[in-house]
Amino acid sequence: MYKVEVIVNYKPGILNPEAKTINNALHSLGYDSIEGVKAGKFFELDFPEDMEETEVEKIADEVCDKLLSNPVIEDYTFKIAKES
Amino acid sequence: MYKVEVIVNYKPGILNPEAKTINNALHSLGYDSIEGVKAGKFFELDFPEDMEETEVEKIADEVCDKLLSNPVIEDYTFKIAKES
Repeated sequence: MYKVEVIVNYKPGILNPEAKTINNALHSLGYDSIEGVKAGKFFELDFPEDMEETEVEKIADEVCDKLLSNPVIEDYTFKIAKES
Repeated sequence: MYKVEVIVNYKPGILNPEAKTINNALHSLGYDSIEGVKAGKFFELDFPEDMEETEVEKIADEVCDKLLSNPVIEDYTFKIAKES
């Protein structure tokens, strides 16, 4: 089985209220050593192992672009791991 | 600088409506090769590079447990990378 791990994050410069809130909470709790926080989404997609890796990559890229992210305000990265 | 990448996912057996919705959408769009979907959260925490890695690990673990996840229904994993 192929496992594709996708991370979707806001593009630089896009205001992220969730990350801001976490950052404020960390400082209220005294975790002042943390200098920055990003908050995004994580997805894992499973593909059957009899597929070609290039095909998995093509489909994963399409799905990230069409369904899992909003390309106007978000960037995505993914990595493919083959598990037996 | 240390970058700590945190992934928070629902524990096995906890119903995740977001993952279910994405799964349904994928099948409606014809992506039938995708056998399973997980949906969770991603965080990145930045720590100053003059800290000890053991201290970064201790603080990251506390923050994940107290603030970034709900330990009743969610699991977290994190990895620490040192960037120059």
